[in-house]
Amino acid sequence: MIDIPIERSEASMTSNSISRRRFLQASGAAAIGLPSLARGYTASEMRGFYANGEMSANVSKWELDTPALCVDLDLLEANLDHMASTMTANGIASRPHAKTHKCPTIAHMQMDRGSVGICTAKVSEAEAMFQNGIDQILNTTGNVTPTKIRRAMNLRAQCPGFIQATDSEPNARLLSEAAVAMGITADVVVDVDPGIRRTGTPFGQPSLQLAQLIDQLPGLNFRGMLCYDAAAQHVVGFQTRKAQTLERMVQATDTLELMQRSGLNTEIFSGGGTGTYNIDHETKGMTDVQVGSYVFMDAQYIAIGGEEDIEVYSDFATSLTVMTTVLNDQYEGRATSDAGAKACTINQPWPIVKGESNITYRSGSDEFGTILYGDDPSRNYKVGDKLEVIVSHCDPVVNLYDQMYAIRGDKVEAVWPISARGMSA
Amino acid sequence: MIDIPIERSEASMTSNSISRRRFLQASGAAAIGLPSLARGYTASEMRGFYANGEMSANVSKWELDTPALCVDLDLLEANLDHMASTMTANGIASRPHAKTHKCPTIAHMQMDRGSVGICTAKVSEAEAMFQNGIDQILNTTGNVTPTKIRRAMNLRAQCPGFIQATDSEPNARLLSEAAVAMGITADVVVDVDPGIRRTGTPFGQPSLQLAQLIDQLPGLNFRGMLCYDAAAQHVVGFQTRKAQTLERMVQATDTLELMQRSGLNTEIFSGGGTGTYNIDHETKGMTDVQVGSYVFMDAQYIAIGGEEDIEVYSDFATSLTVMTTVLNDQYEGRATSDAGAKACTINQPWPIVKGESNITYRSGSDEFGTILYGDDPSRNYKVGDKLEVIVSHCDPVVNLYDQMYAIRGDKVEAVWPISARGMSA
Repeated sequence: MIDIPIERSEASMTSNSISRRRFLQASGAAAIGLPSLARGYTASEMRGFYANGEMSANVSKWELDTPALCVDLDLLEANLDHMASTMTANGIASRPHAKTHKCPTIAHMQMDRGSVGICTAKVSEAEAMFQNGIDQILNTTGNVTPTKIRRAMNLRAQCPGFIQATDSEPNARLLSEAAVAMGITADVVVDVDPGIRRTGTPFGQPSLQLAQLIDQLPGLNFRGMLCYDAAAQHVVGFQTRKAQTLERMVQATDTLELMQRSGLNTEIFSGGGTGTYNIDHETKGMTDVQVGSYVFMDAQYIAIGGEEDIEVYSDFATSLTVMTTVLNDQYEGRATSDAGAKACTINQPWPIVKGESNITYRSGSDEFGTILYGDDPSRNYKVGDKLEVIVSHCDPVVNLYDQMYAIRGDKVEAVWPISARGMSA
Repeated sequence: MIDIPIERSEASMTSNSISRRRFLQASGAAAIGLPSLARGYTASEMRGFYANGEMSANVSKWELDTPALCVDLDLLEANLDHMASTMTANGIASRPHAKTHKCPTIAHMQMDRGSVGICTAKVSEAEAMFQNGIDQILNTTGNVTPTKIRRAMNLRAQCPGFIQATDSEPNARLLSEAAVAMGITADVVVDVDPGIRRTGTPFGQPSLQLAQLIDQLPGLNFRGMLCYDAAAQHVVGFQTRKAQTLERMVQATDTLELMQRSGLNTEIFSGGGTGTYNIDHETKGMTDVQVGSYVFMDAQYIAIGGEEDIEVYSDFATSLTVMTTVLNDQYEGRATSDAGAKACTINQPWPIVKGESNITYRSGSDEFGTILYGDDPSRNYKVGDKLEVIVSHCDPVVNLYDQMYAIRGDKVEAVWPISARGMSA
């Protein structure tokens, strides 16, 4: 557990929302009373200041032109460390999903802490990661068009650590043909559907038969399976989440054992995520956890509750924020900021203003955020004031920005390109 | 009215959703039965094919790597023409909002058809438009930080057609100081709040006093006002929308007349949008309409109904689509595609599959779209099939892509950079 200063007496509070707000209030620097600083360094200026891993200017996060995507380095590193130590203690590996951060710098931080590789959702994302020095990549989505299959096999030719998922016999045959044509042997895992019928092939015989086919096809090297239960990650209540996850994964384990009994290589059984990271090692045979959001956290994950703190999922800290500026303060009970749907998405629960306990923030307008003071007349932001909001759902928010600012204390320590931003193809 | 082949007998149908679906089925090329073409040209390859306004390769839209953002040129041009002719007939100008398309090419098409300028929502958007040859720009959002004020004034120094909105006395004074320091006279309009309390200053005396101050401050040239009623645009039912809009705009007209009686320059009274484009000329004194979404249309606007077709807002055609590929077809009643929230946003109503009448498309997953056949067992997309979906809300979807493909028939005629993509600051 990361040491977050919440008094235990608060854990018994009946209102989840109040408890969550107190957690957030306690967990970060408050925006209250901060002056409107004179500068507002643009994205372009900030890129100019950053070279060879060093900032040539001393810039506070409060001086950034807004909206600006910020990651708190102390919190990010604590999240990375906590995940690494949990994995070690539980005897399971992590293979973090880069779809969350799309940022090679963070992928390297994960690899440096012992992750066995990263996952990518799209082949373009995998290419971006490889071009930035990541060489252990599991592409969890099948590539079904000839171009994407060729790109995946081309990536495999350059990157021996690249592994491609597939979920159908015709697709496995196309992968085989492409690999043979390129003179390579491609590593492949079967994507097994955990029962949500989105991608993957069903548990049991269908998955076994696909695995056996891959094992026999020329140009392919069968490495195991993945089974990502997306529906489990946001189940509210730790015990409910745990029971549901482990019950569903029994069939995944059975499928793995079918493969083992058939003499297939089952060195990879990848699954799980941030919501189940401390549950997945109890699934027999699972080798690594595809955790993504733990690096940043968000309002959606806070709400699911944790093992020790049943109301607030506080295992990881909310390191990712959007910095925004107040544009209008003329109307009672509210203010308008510059971070709306194009800066925060419209995911819900809405973003949470860091350091505030009674304010509601809405990013439903494309260009504007709405700050509502509710029943707290003491709050009264002024034009030019800056607020930091914890985002609702980290993945699609990151995908809106070309760069994120790495902050230590209040100081901008680095400008990280989000190299796979927009790589949805 | 654009000539869209809807049989009039359908207008009397009781179910809006059925009527909307028939409209869409009739209004575009059907995806049904299209073969899975061999190629899948990537964004990078497509940029390489396009130079000096010409494509060096013959590429069908069905050959694009997906997800891909496409605009149908015939429909786009019809939308632009219909808006221009309506404006001419109604004796009012258009000043289209570039926040929708973020694309200089489309801004130039609008200017070529007689628009008096474009609007931008953020100064970074204005800079991107100016850098791409647009020299008549009204920035509708106030700039409140010293950096943004300096940038706006710097843009004004280079671009005599740049006009900045403001909504407070302190902000007007800062604009004045910046303009004087740069030795320029900056054109300014007052942003008047239509009653939604988001940005702008209230009707009547507050707006008049701000206008008078601007008129007196050194370095500023008062040009008039804007009053954008965002809340009016999506009111369902033309007559309701019209009554509400005109009633609310009475106070805007009263405010304008206060300014006129004070001897102020009121050459600009900008307001309205796509939902009220054929209503706004009835607001006394309004000079130009800030229409945005009409170029593309989307599922949200279709639903509001039009003057002639009360169920479907068919004044403009749905020119913007996302091309997507089926990834998984193994589960009954559904299929999974590659365009989810990162390609379509999670706005609702959900995207609509072009050419289909019974299919539901959901983009709620970050990476995947869900195709649901409902009660139509005849539909059965196969892995690799392409679908085109009409987006839910065009503005934030465009903001996810670096380029859009301009399509004539099925052929890609151009690759247009979305130069202001991500320019939310």
